[in-house]
Amino acid sequence: MAKRMGYVRVNFEEKLALFSKRWAPKVIAELNDYQFKLAKLEGEFVWHEHRETDEAFVVLAGALRIELRDGAVELKAGELFVVPKGVEHRPVADGECHVLLVEPRGVVSTGEVASALRAENNVWI
Amino acid sequence: MAKRMGYVRVNFEEKLALFSKRWAPKVIAELNDYQFKLAKLEGEFVWHEHRETDEAFVVLAGALRIELRDGAVELKAGELFVVPKGVEHRPVADGECHVLLVEPRGVVSTGEVASALRAENNVWI
Repeated sequence: MAKRMGYVRVNFEEKLALFSKRWAPKVIAELNDYQFKLAKLEGEFVWHEHRETDEAFVVLAGALRIELRDGAVELKAGELFVVPKGVEHRPVADGECHVLLVEPRGVVSTGEVASALRAENNVWI
Repeated sequence: MAKRMGYVRVNFEEKLALFSKRWAPKVIAELNDYQFKLAKLEGEFVWHEHRETDEAFVVLAGALRIELRDGAVELKAGELFVVPKGVEHRPVADGECHVLLVEPRGVVSTGEVASALRAENNVWI
């Protein structure tokens, strides 16, 4: 049976091939009022927190360090970490890293922090 | 910096090595009131729907066909599909398939359908 209109399979590699900008998450699917986003990370992001929600990172390629004020979590492909609500964190990727993010619709990438790195929100790809 | 207590990195392969039962999702993390679950699928599941929620499937290994009453979606590793709320579906895997599920806490694997395949809910691994 063929895929019918309205049923959208998302292939991560195909979507990742469509953009190169770092720290600019792209929405690929929604689950109720949550969004799945793909992002390419490289270098140091800004310290920030999300006051209203947890935030999930799944590493698809490369490696990511999520720095926390009292430690850090090192992630590689095939690993998941959920940053708890209200916990300050800073993602750092020494090389190019591809991640799948899961969080509620409307979450701003830098939380309350004004930064040149703040991404435009709700950009679909 | 080392991982500190309370910050739990989840490695999919490590968790998948801990169980072999098919159609028995294991919770590995929570994101607000949502859960991430790993499951091993093989063969045909039962037709069912989730009346209150969408349900996300990410294929980690193998291949999965999600049959719908008006079509089907074929998924392989690195692909995501969100079954819309209230849409009848039947997952079918010709070989062993490993998936990451994302759905609200409390979702029963077979929906409203009584079946020997209904999994115990909220089992962490």
